[in-house]
Amino acid sequence: MGSAITDSVLHPFDPLSLDEIQSAIGIVKKAHGDVFFNVVSLHEPRKAEMTKWMADPANAPRPPRIADIVVIAPGGKVYDGLVDIATKKITKWELLDGLQPIITMEELQLVEHICRKDPKVIEQCELSGIPKEDMHKVYCDPWTIGFDERHGNKIRLQQALMYYRPHVDDCQYIYPLDFCPIYDAEKQEVIGIDIPKVRRPLSKVEPINYHPAGVEKVGGYRTDLKPINITQPEGVSFKMNGREIEWQNWKFHIGFNYREGIVLNDITYNDKGTVRPIFYRLSLAEMVVPYGNPEHPHQRKHAFDLGEYGAGYMTNSLALGCDCKGSIHYLDAQFPTRSGEVRTIKNAICIHEEDSGILFKHSDFRDDSVIVTRGRKLIIQQIFTAANYEYAIQWIFHQDGTIQPEIKLTGILNTYSMAVDEDTKGWGTQVYPGVNAHNHQHLFCLRIDANVDGPNNTVFMADAVPSDAPVGSPENYYGNAFYAKRTKLDTTGKAATDYDGATSRTWDICNMSKLHPYSKKPASYKLVSREVARLLPKEGSLVWKRAGFARHAVHVTKYQDDQLWPAGRHVPQTSGEPSLGLPEWIGDGSESVEDADVVLWHTFGVTHIPAPEDFPVMPVEPITLLLRPRNFFANNPVLDVPPSYASTPSQVLARGSGVTDAADKMSRLAFADGANGTNGSCCAT
Amino acid sequence: MGSAITDSVLHPFDPLSLDEIQSAIGIVKKAHGDVFFNVVSLHEPRKAEMTKWMADPANAPRPPRIADIVVIAPGGKVYDGLVDIATKKITKWELLDGLQPIITMEELQLVEHICRKDPKVIEQCELSGIPKEDMHKVYCDPWTIGFDERHGNKIRLQQALMYYRPHVDDCQYIYPLDFCPIYDAEKQEVIGIDIPKVRRPLSKVEPINYHPAGVEKVGGYRTDLKPINITQPEGVSFKMNGREIEWQNWKFHIGFNYREGIVLNDITYNDKGTVRPIFYRLSLAEMVVPYGNPEHPHQRKHAFDLGEYGAGYMTNSLALGCDCKGSIHYLDAQFPTRSGEVRTIKNAICIHEEDSGILFKHSDFRDDSVIVTRGRKLIIQQIFTAANYEYAIQWIFHQDGTIQPEIKLTGILNTYSMAVDEDTKGWGTQVYPGVNAHNHQHLFCLRIDANVDGPNNTVFMADAVPSDAPVGSPENYYGNAFYAKRTKLDTTGKAATDYDGATSRTWDICNMSKLHPYSKKPASYKLVSREVARLLPKEGSLVWKRAGFARHAVHVTKYQDDQLWPAGRHVPQTSGEPSLGLPEWIGDGSESVEDADVVLWHTFGVTHIPAPEDFPVMPVEPITLLLRPRNFFANNPVLDVPPSYASTPSQVLARGSGVTDAADKMSRLAFADGANGTNGSCCAT
Ligand SMILES: [Co+2]
Ligand SMILES: [Co+2]
Repeated sequence: MGSAITDSVLHPFDPLSLDEIQSAIGIVKKAHGDVFFNVVSLHEPRKAEMTKWMADPANAPRPPRIADIVVIAPGGKVYDGLVDIATKKITKWELLDGLQPIITMEELQLVEHICRKDPKVIEQCELSGIPKEDMHKVYCDPWTIGFDERHGNKIRLQQALMYYRPHVDDCQYIYPLDFCPIYDAEKQEVIGIDIPKVRRPLSKVEPINYHPAGVEKVGGYRTDLKPINITQPEGVSFKMNGREIEWQNWKFHIGFNYREGIVLNDITYNDKGTVRPIFYRLSLAEMVVPYGNPEHPHQRKHAFDLGEYGAGYMTNSLALGCDCKGSIHYLDAQFPTRSGEVRTIKNAICIHEEDSGILFKHSDFRDDSVIVTRGRKLIIQQIFTAANYEYAIQWIFHQDGTIQPEIKLTGILNTYSMAVDEDTKGWGTQVYPGVNAHNHQHLFCLRIDANVDGPNNTVFMADAVPSDAPVGSPENYYGNAFYAKRTKLDTTGKAATDYDGATSRTWDICNMSKLHPYSKKPASYKLVSREVARLLPKEGSLVWKRAGFARHAVHVTKYQDDQLWPAGRHVPQTSGEPSLGLPEWIGDGSESVEDADVVLWHTFGVTHIPAPEDFPVMPVEPITLLLRPRNFFANNPVLDVPPSYASTPSQVLARGSGVTDAADKMSRLAFADGANGTNGSCCAT
Repeated sequence: MGSAITDSVLHPFDPLSLDEIQSAIGIVKKAHGDVFFNVVSLHEPRKAEMTKWMADPANAPRPPRIADIVVIAPGGKVYDGLVDIATKKITKWELLDGLQPIITMEELQLVEHICRKDPKVIEQCELSGIPKEDMHKVYCDPWTIGFDERHGNKIRLQQALMYYRPHVDDCQYIYPLDFCPIYDAEKQEVIGIDIPKVRRPLSKVEPINYHPAGVEKVGGYRTDLKPINITQPEGVSFKMNGREIEWQNWKFHIGFNYREGIVLNDITYNDKGTVRPIFYRLSLAEMVVPYGNPEHPHQRKHAFDLGEYGAGYMTNSLALGCDCKGSIHYLDAQFPTRSGEVRTIKNAICIHEEDSGILFKHSDFRDDSVIVTRGRKLIIQQIFTAANYEYAIQWIFHQDGTIQPEIKLTGILNTYSMAVDEDTKGWGTQVYPGVNAHNHQHLFCLRIDANVDGPNNTVFMADAVPSDAPVGSPENYYGNAFYAKRTKLDTTGKAATDYDGATSRTWDICNMSKLHPYSKKPASYKLVSREVARLLPKEGSLVWKRAGFARHAVHVTKYQDDQLWPAGRHVPQTSGEPSLGLPEWIGDGSESVEDADVVLWHTFGVTHIPAPEDFPVMPVEPITLLLRPRNFFANNPVLDVPPSYASTPSQVLARGSGVTDAADKMSRLAFADGANGTNGSCCAT
């Protein structure tokens, strides 16, 4: 589109490059000496500037590359800063008070080593039945402390969930310990231990392991799976230009940051030659996993995995033929180390296409004339490991304009010890002898920076409801009348809305200035989301206070630069008094969000009551939702996808002359002896 | 398991064979002369007999093969009959009064021809702007009349939804006509026409066609899709023994009938050598598609597609490489013709496996030791065409014991004409000039004949709710307590329950005599269903009366032979007074369904407010739900699925010695120049 950008120039949405990270670190070190680097990440271009540049990249000023910096200086002093990469200037440097930055993997790694050597921890291990000399068999998953009112937020703390492994390869979640050390990250020492009143000794149960030796021990692997090969001998159907992808009329930029992981920007659809903007930015912006056991200190288990650890920092390096099958394109990620080096996560993002079954089909019952067209989807995926849990995040693009964020939960349940015959009181499930898996929720916040045919959008709530007119009345004589009741969410207050399963509630992001020529309804993208567990911690509870975004299924705000993360910029150890992020931005709820540059925040997810089937590792549980174009396209936008087979009535009449037959020629009958054949052992009529 | 059955003997669950259909027809003809055959189908074995036989097939008596017959004799007399195939005896022959049997495709085919020649229809066409000589361009979709109080149910009627095609290959749904002939199937003539007060002339709009010539005319097909090949060079992983399939510990029988289409029987899972029954029978037993426009006679549009036309009778013959991709096994279907011949639908059912992405994964953040195991699913599919709509029904089996019924909606919207500038009043959407697509619902009833570790099961409703104890109280100090509240549905009345999105309500089918050794909870299958639109036609409305099953998301009844179809055995023209099927069986709701042989009826589906994107043919819209084992298996039942990659901490320590690497070797990088390569046109950083 007439861009004058040369290939060597980064796109303004690109993550900081290795050079840029190094440069920013160098500038900070020069000015402030040795500090721990928690964040060195792209400070995203201001939307006003960026929009101008996107409209006219040849002439508009190119948004500068700015590094967003968070460091911890000696004495535990936390600074927020900005570094202009080109001018090498630090343009902001601000000491924070009572805010703790994101916890890095390196910080987490330290805790276990320190716990193993701490005399108080050793004492508790001995009480649990672990001799001193076995401390190398003691492990801990260091968790954010959440918020502990005894300790506040001036001291940087973590809680250490303790486990034991009889053998280094055993699954530690079979052997939880019942006490919980509290770790001071600045001092690098254990400052206290939470010890329950009733003690639960270390379980002596035989392990159930998911590793090959464990499986071999109990019967070995099944041998009846034949390979399925997926190949694209002519290559893939998408094109990459740096981090911009083009596929089936879609075009967008694939960013990645420490916090949200994948960030998709400038999502457009080429509608018969007109490039139509849909979303300025899409990401998973926050999540919270509250656990439902009220016994102290389990209330502290409610990790904000993105805000407290980072979906980028925790992301897996993906492997070809394991995490991803077929023809795969990968993108790497680069992050600072604490000391100021750069670490690279190879293959942090995988990109591939999949056949998605039938895209549309219709047969005419009169003559069997038929069209069958197969669909395709494009998947942008990352997988991150949050201590015990794994989250596979897929951004699925469909040819018909639908975007489907999908999250697959797998990994391992967080577990706590239980005594023989202990009553879980309904707050958890014994998934293995001595193993109590507590009830919990996985609540995700999808941030939708809408741009449906331009920045000025309005959000409506749509409820499928019966007519008010009673059965037998002239307006509804047979009682069958129903319609979609639309409620305009014109202020931030009114927009705080919940899911209603009884009306199959959806939300429409509309451009009121683009009425559809036929339907006269505004061009829109509809949020169709059905896995919408409400926040179960009660109003006024610790989690409710800290996770303001999770109080409602939908919030709408007016776009503001830097309002990216709905539980606040710095999440660890926030008290929720006041609630940071969304509740701050919404304030008294009076701000108009009608015909404005709006951001829709959607909290969705599941309540997980564990069962033994989830242990020792969980088969994936998917959660999905749809963003669907409605009254956006003139008509079905995929009529031009080549059909596998198409015959018209006149072609049927002409005995098949002229039919389109592009059936996949690689498909085969499963058994050699024909459509009704069997595997050779028998053959019923 | 020691069966003495020879290969040539049909399984008692097998559909009637061609020979059996012919034989039954011959016996009926001999006794009753020339009649129209509406149904010649397997009369399913009595459960008590069948259960005995299944337990001991070598010694127990084999359930006899019985044909279930419905005929229409001259004078419109309807008979229900049973024919014993072996003894050639008619064991039941019953004249029905005021009941109309299912409408066959052949009956439907006739209507259009008769309408075209009917002077009253020709007159209305002329009024609409279609000259007499163009009557061959007039089409009709003959629909069940539903129930029309002016005509009752003694005369067999259909309503003819009228359309026009400028060219034989044009999509007729662009040109709906505004009047509706009523057709007498016995007399084979039009007995009246419903004519609206305000007339809407034939639209002169240019067609939008989805056939290749139509697409070529407006720019042609996209050319940027590269093939994806899916192959199984070593064959498939399932085995067929007649219509019994074995795959990944699953074993079940695949039946098929005119009414429900696919019927799955005797679903078991081999749990480490113990064959555990789960469902005696699973099927989609009924559906209703109420339309929401109150204007007469649209209230008649609420087809019970299974009960009134039959998902079997309407099923498509599937094509390799079009409807199904990969290595496919097909099963045919055989049905009687009206006159007593047999028609075969080749490839009525397709069966194949698919890779289903990651089955489970876990990485240890300490050392990156990891296991990644890919999953597989088995899909049993049929696709049926109900006039304008297509329904692809998939029964998806997962390795972990989950069964996922999935329905994909595609095909074409039912349309009605609208005048220029006519107000749709919110009851429909103008999807193309002059085309009004009315609001409607697709409500499906899944019949679950449960057999979870045996016939005696109990159903519970499970709601995720906060603790009653307030924030700050000793029992819930931090306010985070929540649990699954379980309500026993011990009578048929109490079991009539609705979906509650606010509590993420699920239903558990439990075997109370099989408590899990760890969780102490009963072995169960959990119904997880989120697309649960409530019936929008009001209480007391015509649809509400006729579709008793759709009044609640869940009903539970005690198993009775022949209680298969929840809107009744003969659905066309039922008045709903009284409501047939489920409401009859439930009666006063006092019957106990605790620890009994229960059937759970689940009504789910979507409300469809049309949009132009759905026209002229709809991209598929999927609806899915899960039946998940909970507290059923000792632990995760798929640990023995071979991993793609597995390394343990000790193997990582030993520099990778001993790791399992079975990554799919057919997978490739998308672009030749490596993980970060591009398509050659450029290369950022
Ligand atoms: Co969970
Ligand atoms: Co529909």
